Amino acid sequence: MSEFLTLLPPPEALSLLLNHLTTKPTAEWIPTADSLGRITAAPVYAPFPLPTFARSTVDGYAVRARDTFGASESLPAYLTVAGEVAMGTAATQPLTSGQCQLIHTGGMLPPGADAVVMVEHTQEARAGEREILRTVAVGENVLQVGEDVHAGREVIPVGVRLRPAEIGGLMALGLAEVAVTRQPLIGILSSGDEVIRPGQPLQMGQVYDVNSYTLQALVAQAGGRPHLYPLLPDEPAAFKATAEQAWAECDMLLFTAGSSVSARDLTAQTIAGLGAPGVLVHGVSVRPGKPTILAVCGGKPVIGLPGNPVSALIIAQILAVPVLERLLGLKQPRPHGRITARLATNLPSQAGREDWVAVRLVPQADGTYTAEPIFGKSNLIFTLARADGLLCIPPSANGLPAGAEVAVELMQ
Amino acid sequence: MSEFLTLLPPPEALSLLLNHLTTKPTAEWIPTADSLGRITAAPVYAPFPLPTFARSTVDGYAVRARDTFGASESLPAYLTVAGEVAMGTAATQPLTSGQCQLIHTGGMLPPGADAVVMVEHTQEARAGEREILRTVAVGENVLQVGEDVHAGREVIPVGVRLRPAEIGGLMALGLAEVAVTRQPLIGILSSGDEVIRPGQPLQMGQVYDVNSYTLQALVAQAGGRPHLYPLLPDEPAAFKATAEQAWAECDMLLFTAGSSVSARDLTAQTIAGLGAPGVLVHGVSVRPGKPTILAVCGGKPVIGLPGNPVSALIIAQILAVPVLERLLGLKQPRPHGRITARLATNLPSQAGREDWVAVRLVPQADGTYTAEPIFGKSNLIFTLARADGLLCIPPSANGLPAGAEVAVELMQ
Repeated sequence: MSEFLTLLPPPEALSLLLNHLTTKPTAEWIPTADSLGRITAAPVYAPFPLPTFARSTVDGYAVRARDTFGASESLPAYLTVAGEVAMGTAATQPLTSGQCQLIHTGGMLPPGADAVVMVEHTQEARAGEREILRTVAVGENVLQVGEDVHAGREVIPVGVRLRPAEIGGLMALGLAEVAVTRQPLIGILSSGDEVIRPGQPLQMGQVYDVNSYTLQALVAQAGGRPHLYPLLPDEPAAFKATAEQAWAECDMLLFTAGSSVSARDLTAQTIAGLGAPGVLVHGVSVRPGKPTILAVCGGKPVIGLPGNPVSALIIAQILAVPVLERLLGLKQPRPHGRITARLATNLPSQAGREDWVAVRLVPQADGTYTAEPIFGKSNLIFTLARADGLLCIPPSANGLPAGAEVAVELMQ
Repeated sequence: MSEFLTLLPPPEALSLLLNHLTTKPTAEWIPTADSLGRITAAPVYAPFPLPTFARSTVDGYAVRARDTFGASESLPAYLTVAGEVAMGTAATQPLTSGQCQLIHTGGMLPPGADAVVMVEHTQEARAGEREILRTVAVGENVLQVGEDVHAGREVIPVGVRLRPAEIGGLMALGLAEVAVTRQPLIGILSSGDEVIRPGQPLQMGQVYDVNSYTLQALVAQAGGRPHLYPLLPDEPAAFKATAEQAWAECDMLLFTAGSSVSARDLTAQTIAGLGAPGVLVHGVSVRPGKPTILAVCGGKPVIGLPGNPVSALIIAQILAVPVLERLLGLKQPRPHGRITARLATNLPSQAGREDWVAVRLVPQADGTYTAEPIFGKSNLIFTLARADGLLCIPPSANGLPAGAEVAVELMQ
């Protein structure tokens, strides 16, 4: 096992892994009402136009526009009130010249009508007759058939994450079920002689397992189904047997090794043996997270994350989440939540390496933010718990000066 | 019922409602592993320090720093190797002067040691002896007890939404359960003679219910438990009976009335009758969403949203979500996801009114974004489905020029 012979920058390391993935997401039909956050497995086409009938956008009177031409407050037009369009019913009674019909917002335009006069621009003349005080143009205050969406048009592309707005659009088209991609099962495997699960009493020299739970939460947040395996045993044969079982059961594996040399070595060897092509990247030019392993084993992505909790969570965010999104079939990611802020202090960095720094965002009186780096050794999990986001110092820079404008990626 | 006598700006309307809320969130204990997105019901204090024992941050040799003073490549110090600190066990064998012990990253410092020399800065002298090639200072390569968190310190304040990082922090402290606020039950009630539920065949003049589902998704996303009631009947007594039952069962109600006059009137009258103090705001100086009703009835917030789907979703986002967050006990909201972009076109607006405009964010070659307003009548749900976010034109402006720098609130 050749360690750290070539340190790839994170974007290149990620591309290398993604280029080796061959599996395509599979689809399932689910109720649209339960589809929040899921990814479309196919484009959605409008089965009919929206609106499906010409609708009034105001409360008023449906008219023939030419019957109102020249009408004004001083010289109103007089139209006979020929009934009312009831909401939720087809307007079937045709409107003839010289007539108007009472209509409500969202009501269907009757045959023969081509505009609506707002009720405020009319007044009663005598029983059964309305004074029209304004001229309206053809189409005024009317939503035409297909003005929102034409029949047959693609309304939601494939690979889009569904938000409340898309769910509303699907429902408007009567699509009570939607084809979404299946959520991949992500196996999470932690090891380390010093690591025990919370709930057990802590002995001197031991630490509680953090990575299993931060990764479980991150995977769930990103749309995967996390599955925690028991802490891996120290014994090589049992370690490999559990890893192979997890590989067979899951769509992707995330390993985190504790700090012990044996756990780190076992993890690297085990990943290398899970299947071809195997380890693609061993070492990434990023801080924290240099000793990251990226592999594809028999078509499934396998990532060896650093053991230290801060590095593991940051690397999972920048490298494992994009891989999970690929498995999910996310093709059109929306812009990430970012805050532009001014850096509070100088931040040194080593050129040629991507540096990720946890920052707190402090609101200023003028509505802008200051980004305060949270310094601390990278083993400190509360560095991240106190952070609002992460900022990236690109490999081309050897640091950022105080006052620099920086884009902070929010930690959700 | 006096409509639109006073149009309050959205922030003042919201404050008025929040000031009438008296209920406090209640707490429940849940497994920390299931707490993603939940809100802390009490501050969390560290039951013990982190780390709980002095730990090495590198692979190397635990030493007494003064035994290395003056050591260099040309003049190494020679130390006897007195064993190895095994991972996950208490280091009990004291280190005496002239000795070193092999130690791994995360290993416990033995009694008597006060620094660690990296393995790269040592070499084997003869069996049982190590050459030390560098001087280390007291504390070098050591994480001290409490360096991450001191015992008794508040590590997570009350009212914080739990992210993967906080879950990791709780687990590091062995806190496998956490006190979070109960998720309020939010009743969603829609009405309108023209509105039917998706799944039924659409008759001419009818439209599918959109608002129930966009609101259901938005409430779930914000951390509430949505409950959809059947579409409200047109008959006043039955309408009120259903509304009163929902009010008794839920912690907050969201009404959306269809476009029919009867549905709108029934909604306004019903909200007014649900309890004291009743309607606080009827009409907000915002577009879309002017005919919004804000009420507190017997201590519970009740919001009457506009019937049109775009207005309903935008108003729910800017007015209902903050109320829900109050019920959830969210005290320390993190900065929202925002993207600073350049406006692609002129945007007219009416001074004295807050305008919310749906925009698409178009990435530019230099990594910045252009914000393209999605024009369309406000009834068009696919206006929102095509949008990446919303931008707010404040009441003080009468529009924004093309090229202006704008902050776009992302629609999640």
